[in-house]
Amino acid sequence: MSPQKLRVGIAGLGRMGQRHAFNYHALTPHAEVVAASSPDWNEHKWAAENLTNARIYKDYYEMLEKENLDAVVVAGITAVHADHAIAAIKKGLHVMCEKPLSLDTKIAQSVLDTYKQSLKTYPNQKVMCGFSRRFDDSYREAYKRMVSGKHGRPVVFRSQTADALDTTGTFVNYAKTSGGIFLDCSIHDIDLMLWFMGEDTNVKSLQAVGVTAVHSGLDSSKDRDNAIATIEFEGGKIATLFCTRIMAAGQEDTTEIICEKGSLRVNMQVRKNHVEIHDSLGARRDLPAHYYERFREAFLTEANEFTACCLDNTPAPITLTSSVKAVVIASALQRSLITGEKIVFESVKDAKL
Amino acid sequence: MSPQKLRVGIAGLGRMGQRHAFNYHALTPHAEVVAASSPDWNEHKWAAENLTNARIYKDYYEMLEKENLDAVVVAGITAVHADHAIAAIKKGLHVMCEKPLSLDTKIAQSVLDTYKQSLKTYPNQKVMCGFSRRFDDSYREAYKRMVSGKHGRPVVFRSQTADALDTTGTFVNYAKTSGGIFLDCSIHDIDLMLWFMGEDTNVKSLQAVGVTAVHSGLDSSKDRDNAIATIEFEGGKIATLFCTRIMAAGQEDTTEIICEKGSLRVNMQVRKNHVEIHDSLGARRDLPAHYYERFREAFLTEANEFTACCLDNTPAPITLTSSVKAVVIASALQRSLITGEKIVFESVKDAKL
Amino acid sequence: MSPQKLRVGIAGLGRMGQRHAFNYHALTPHAEVVAASSPDWNEHKWAAENLTNARIYKDYYEMLEKENLDAVVVAGITAVHADHAIAAIKKGLHVMCEKPLSLDTKIAQSVLDTYKQSLKTYPNQKVMCGFSRRFDDSYREAYKRMVSGKHGRPVVFRSQTADALDTTGTFVNYAKTSGGIFLDCSIHDIDLMLWFMGEDTNVKSLQAVGVTAVHSGLDSSKDRDNAIATIEFEGGKIATLFCTRIMAAGQEDTTEIICEKGSLRVNMQVRKNHVEIHDSLGARRDLPAHYYERFREAFLTEANEFTACCLDNTPAPITLTSSVKAVVIASALQRSLITGEKIVFESVKDAKL
Amino acid sequence: MSPQKLRVGIAGLGRMGQRHAFNYHALTPHAEVVAASSPDWNEHKWAAENLTNARIYKDYYEMLEKENLDAVVVAGITAVHADHAIAAIKKGLHVMCEKPLSLDTKIAQSVLDTYKQSLKTYPNQKVMCGFSRRFDDSYREAYKRMVSGKHGRPVVFRSQTADALDTTGTFVNYAKTSGGIFLDCSIHDIDLMLWFMGEDTNVKSLQAVGVTAVHSGLDSSKDRDNAIATIEFEGGKIATLFCTRIMAAGQEDTTEIICEKGSLRVNMQVRKNHVEIHDSLGARRDLPAHYYERFREAFLTEANEFTACCLDNTPAPITLTSSVKAVVIASALQRSLITGEKIVFESVKDAKL
Repeated sequence: MSPQKLRVGIAGLGRMGQRHAFNYHALTPHAEVVAASSPDWNEHKWAAENLTNARIYKDYYEMLEKENLDAVVVAGITAVHADHAIAAIKKGLHVMCEKPLSLDTKIAQSVLDTYKQSLKTYPNQKVMCGFSRRFDDSYREAYKRMVSGKHGRPVVFRSQTADALDTTGTFVNYAKTSGGIFLDCSIHDIDLMLWFMGEDTNVKSLQAVGVTAVHSGLDSSKDRDNAIATIEFEGGKIATLFCTRIMAAGQEDTTEIICEKGSLRVNMQVRKNHVEIHDSLGARRDLPAHYYERFREAFLTEANEFTACCLDNTPAPITLTSSVKAVVIASALQRSLITGEKIVFESVKDAKL
Repeated sequence: MSPQKLRVGIAGLGRMGQRHAFNYHALTPHAEVVAASSPDWNEHKWAAENLTNARIYKDYYEMLEKENLDAVVVAGITAVHADHAIAAIKKGLHVMCEKPLSLDTKIAQSVLDTYKQSLKTYPNQKVMCGFSRRFDDSYREAYKRMVSGKHGRPVVFRSQTADALDTTGTFVNYAKTSGGIFLDCSIHDIDLMLWFMGEDTNVKSLQAVGVTAVHSGLDSSKDRDNAIATIEFEGGKIATLFCTRIMAAGQEDTTEIICEKGSLRVNMQVRKNHVEIHDSLGARRDLPAHYYERFREAFLTEANEFTACCLDNTPAPITLTSSVKAVVIASALQRSLITGEKIVFESVKDAKL
Repeated sequence: MSPQKLRVGIAGLGRMGQRHAFNYHALTPHAEVVAASSPDWNEHKWAAENLTNARIYKDYYEMLEKENLDAVVVAGITAVHADHAIAAIKKGLHVMCEKPLSLDTKIAQSVLDTYKQSLKTYPNQKVMCGFSRRFDDSYREAYKRMVSGKHGRPVVFRSQTADALDTTGTFVNYAKTSGGIFLDCSIHDIDLMLWFMGEDTNVKSLQAVGVTAVHSGLDSSKDRDNAIATIEFEGGKIATLFCTRIMAAGQEDTTEIICEKGSLRVNMQVRKNHVEIHDSLGARRDLPAHYYERFREAFLTEANEFTACCLDNTPAPITLTSSVKAVVIASALQRSLITGEKIVFESVKDAKL
Repeated sequence: MSPQKLRVGIAGLGRMGQRHAFNYHALTPHAEVVAASSPDWNEHKWAAENLTNARIYKDYYEMLEKENLDAVVVAGITAVHADHAIAAIKKGLHVMCEKPLSLDTKIAQSVLDTYKQSLKTYPNQKVMCGFSRRFDDSYREAYKRMVSGKHGRPVVFRSQTADALDTTGTFVNYAKTSGGIFLDCSIHDIDLMLWFMGEDTNVKSLQAVGVTAVHSGLDSSKDRDNAIATIEFEGGKIATLFCTRIMAAGQEDTTEIICEKGSLRVNMQVRKNHVEIHDSLGARRDLPAHYYERFREAFLTEANEFTACCLDNTPAPITLTSSVKAVVIASALQRSLITGEKIVFESVKDAKL
């Protein structure tokens, strides 16, 4: 790897922005956070304490202009992901953008178009959407085993994002701008589905059903707290996704790839750590409280690998095209969830997926 | 319990008939198999060795006429289930009928109608479809915990029947008359779904997708070897069913009931027995080779409980109405699987479900 | 198998006697309980309700004299096991005797001596000590895998009998006559150890330590509620046994056989059934409340196999010699537990083990 | 935490030294490796590539003299642990020393004596032996639950270090200087035992047995490849340790603390990652290949916490006294393993344990 360090700017210092900032600053040996931007003064305080020597801006575009950055991590609210990414892409910077690129399929596509255009000027530029599960050791081993061919062709893909029950109301409020449960939760499963079933495999149809069981405020946001999707692919493959916001015991993100001669599972025996307690309540274990407990290591790997691909000019671990496709599929599922219609995917083909 | 033994006749001595015959004869203290019928001489030979003192008939109706039976176990091929059941019902006998009642919803309904009529003459008569999973200790404990209300209302039901991969061709041949994967495999999950989600809860809509991955001969039978269904119920509940015929490791029948404040799982860690082997291949365990390895004890409980309800005149453990409803749902899913249509369930209401 | 049924008499109708009586009477197709004896009138009442047609005696020896029995199941209190067994052996009857044969090694040996003598007159006579775990499917599969040789020679044997915590005082009272924790609990593990490590393998030395943690009344009975033993065998094998009476979550009887190229485990993931509950307490399962929940099926197999070996004149599944050896080892461990001494096993050789 | 970084020197750049060096250099935000020493030129090459800006020495003592260090990590061969530690202690440096302090109990004690003396001059000095398992999340949660008292007093401690089978001969060669299986493997379990059972609790007696099953070269080193220890403590507690070098499936380090009203387990379901494979071989998972796969995160936490205690002058996470006690117990177990004697622990008391 190149000896110099990647100079990184962080756009947004909310919960996720702080995690990325700390990971790049303290735990990615070949990167250093030289600047960060946030409109929130409280977050500036956090940065002063945790991002030694980094300059902190109120305005993202001012940071872009004044700093000599190699790369930007886009980690603000979803509504500005695309704008922030596009501005950095046009300056020739490497960009790692939090998921989803956008809630709007056209805007997501415009990020991809901008990047394709920019590559003519900056052929070494890397732009990647941060789908952390692709960096998880277990998913990678499952993928490696699948492509070995030993178990035959993948036939059925089943995956779920099951979030711990949160009764504080935070989630209901957040749902107003999240784009819905498929764009917010299932987008990870959709990304995995594309990875495992083939990013070039066309979707033939999809459909979704759901209910609002606990978070009654969701209906007014045209959202649900439990949803099930089924997707048909060309070439004889099917998938089913489940997402829920009411898991009482904790986070349960599990995936199964059923192949012709074997089935690969990730995280079917969910556990927070290696402890088991046997007492008068039976034998029990704790579950992760949220996705970051499950995927913290994957985020670190993501930071280190994105850094490496920028410094070494190797391909980014995830194509931007597949991330746009994920937005298209998630949007269609959300539409099916609300309208009850089965969607046949001519439109996707038109969108050049 | 009444001191006398229930005099049982067995209709059909194929694989399943032999199991029922042995269970009632040797392992149900309050029952005795006094007669059995089968058109197959080889099966008569089995009966001579295993059903001491029982009289064996070539013709079922002759057995009905000549024997002084209390009850009949209908266990021949699916095509004659309804006829055999109806003949016994009309004679006032108790009937335990293997699932499914019929592949045809109207015929299934006619068994129910006959029973309702017969009850006017024989008010103590019991007629029950043999859904063995209802007699499994684990499903019963899950049910008991659910109805305790401690975990809140059930919201999402997920269940699967995953059969071991069979490459002998037997299955493809069998599929020609099985009625399809939803009537053959998922009928158990549908029965469980009705039990857990409420037998009186109306289905709003359902849809299914599937593929033929391994058993290529299935397509000509309008069947698939992998299928996924989603069902919407009135009152804010949804369900998803998965069925497959290609599980390389063995039988994996699992169920999850997600309630507002907790989730109940049955058999998520599938295992054949208590052995685990740690060697150079890792840590591993065997799975059951087929459903009877998993549910043998449930079949015994079924025989003993059906015997008890007949002798003691207590309600049968499963209502016949719900078993007709299971056939209606399975048929609709099979139709959706082949046509690709979402089915909205006005028709079910018309059918008085 | 011979068509006639084995005529069985039951000696003792306490908790264990009732289980054996019911198993032989109702669930062993080729046996029938024709008589039973118990000094307790309450137990006669149970017999009247559950052992239809059997004659019930106050006195065991009167039953032996008056009844035309083929076999006796000795299931009274330990103190009379040997006397009851010897009386039946001398009459030429088949005998299945509950474990242990005796708390006294010499008396245990005298049962074996009587049997050897009796065989000269009754060469088809079967006498077996009822070590139920040998009939458990999982132990059998582990044994089968071990002797296949695929994993190499067995080197280390680890096994435990972990009883659920009982705070009613029953256990402390029982301990006064149980012979101590190694004769009462670990005798099963010792039997398994002999089976897996080789019944002809000589013990070189053994030692034990223990504590009384909860059942403080035990010290006056020279007993402990937790104990650990280590045993050295000739030929480069070692074993360690653990027994406890304070398991808060339930019964945990587990065994591991470490071979040169693999390790075989039985019941490491203890569970009562297939249910798992995920709620605010985490993910949990229940454990068996006691050994009968874990081994009920093994007791049934035992009854059926003992019946078969008597009717068919095949070797008994367990040699009586190994059961005497188990008493010798258990007694020595109990002595080491109390004295703190390591015992070197010349004495065992003298005892012709 | 203090803003400046801890200036660390690494003594030894073998496998373990390289891991510590990388952890302190790249993954401990408040530390920097400024120097390292190794007699091996190949290791200097590794350092040049991985420890940017650090100066590398052939001689440890030269490094101590020339560098302005805050702390030293002692990670060379066991034979020089104590000498290296003592030299650094005398200079007033903080010291983290790999386990064990020494194979000789007197030398181990002399490190402690030196530290006690040095504290008079350097009252803020930290000296700690690196028992990595104390930094593992799971062990910490088990400890926290135990000291909460909710499960009652700890009564029985069971722990094992089970190393993967290595047939390359490396281990046999290493055993010549390792001090034996209890000093090399079980020292971790002994440290955990002291932590969980109480560092001030006196050992009453101990004994060990073992065999050489696979690594036949070990006997000449007075070592074994499988060993079992039992330890009695004052105050009614017992422990049993198991160590093996022949685990075919991988590393299995597990621990159980049985309390009066509950049992706490760590790592009973050993797994390398979250993947499970279901194929014709059954359901299986991989195990960690070695301890570093299991404890990598704990080593990182150790580096960060040792750094923090030095910078902030808080107590070191592990007392040096307990680490000396661990050497005394391990040595006694090794003696018992070879001589076959039970050792009664007056001598330990004399040694001021």
